Amino acid sequence: MDTIDAIFTRRSYRGKFKDTPVPRNELKTILEAGLAAPSGCNKQTVSLIGVDDPELLKRLHSVIEPDVAETAPAMILVLSRHIIAYRQRCFAVQDYAAAIENMLLAAEEMGYASCWYEGHITDTDRICDKLAEILGVPEGYELVCLLPLGVPTDTPTAPKKQDFSERAWFNGFGNK
Amino acid sequence: MDTIDAIFTRRSYRGKFKDTPVPRNELKTILEAGLAAPSGCNKQTVSLIGVDDPELLKRLHSVIEPDVAETAPAMILVLSRHIIAYRQRCFAVQDYAAAIENMLLAAEEMGYASCWYEGHITDTDRICDKLAEILGVPEGYELVCLLPLGVPTDTPTAPKKQDFSERAWFNGFGNK
Repeated sequence: MDTIDAIFTRRSYRGKFKDTPVPRNELKTILEAGLAAPSGCNKQTVSLIGVDDPELLKRLHSVIEPDVAETAPAMILVLSRHIIAYRQRCFAVQDYAAAIENMLLAAEEMGYASCWYEGHITDTDRICDKLAEILGVPEGYELVCLLPLGVPTDTPTAPKKQDFSERAWFNGFGNK
Repeated sequence: MDTIDAIFTRRSYRGKFKDTPVPRNELKTILEAGLAAPSGCNKQTVSLIGVDDPELLKRLHSVIEPDVAETAPAMILVLSRHIIAYRQRCFAVQDYAAAIENMLLAAEEMGYASCWYEGHITDTDRICDKLAEILGVPEGYELVCLLPLGVPTDTPTAPKKQDFSERAWFNGFGNK
């Protein structure tokens, strides 16, 4: 699948997954794709944990309330470090978002579905901290996102979006 | 070029560009790729301006100090709106970073080079505001990033990165 196709066919998938496992080498390729994203001043603020152990997946799901993607055979947890790039500025959010997008596209190409779960797990009930504790994540790393990974059972539908002409223009704001 | 290849071959390019123009339909495809990125709660906080008018490019470069990518025949300016997704939380940075990564990958596939210029233009000297004024960007939209676009004259080198085993693990922090 070429890049443009992957970009346009990728969807946030919230349905059930087949029980087909994600081979370790494919999970690794997706993690490598995440780490291949650019980072502000090359500070490499992103780290990743791939989970494919069924028992560990169960423990992680036990602290996700309400639970999501219970049937996914693998999961990626995204960790972020607050490292100053220059002049008191940190681009850690940009860094992990670019890494996540790379992983979503790599997954799409490899026939997997996923979904960017961030707000739900970093909310005031701090599911992220419970997940981080189970995974042995040390201080200095913040768990910011959960990406389930697996073969989807359904075809997700596209969300409604504004037309191109309402969001993109040429040679000046509002120019069609 | 498949997605995984584009992810691994993409580089931040700071060299000179050939004077080959970027056809409008290709520029549009790259903008569409940006808008195809997911956004938190589908708030679609990202807007884009593609610039391919040589006179306008000159005006924009006149306010970038020090200048970057002077020879690029096209440029994309990324605009962001602060829209609350839910419970006082806004995911606008994540949204535009995902959109930027999509555009960088689409550009890579189409034979163009680019570079994510953010810190330089949103610094305390607020080059972003000067660019926004020239482009007629109204209040409520923040110009957050500049992506030059063109055919590169050189092959950029890869930045030094930490090894995979220092940044990614399986089934627990630090597990190889």
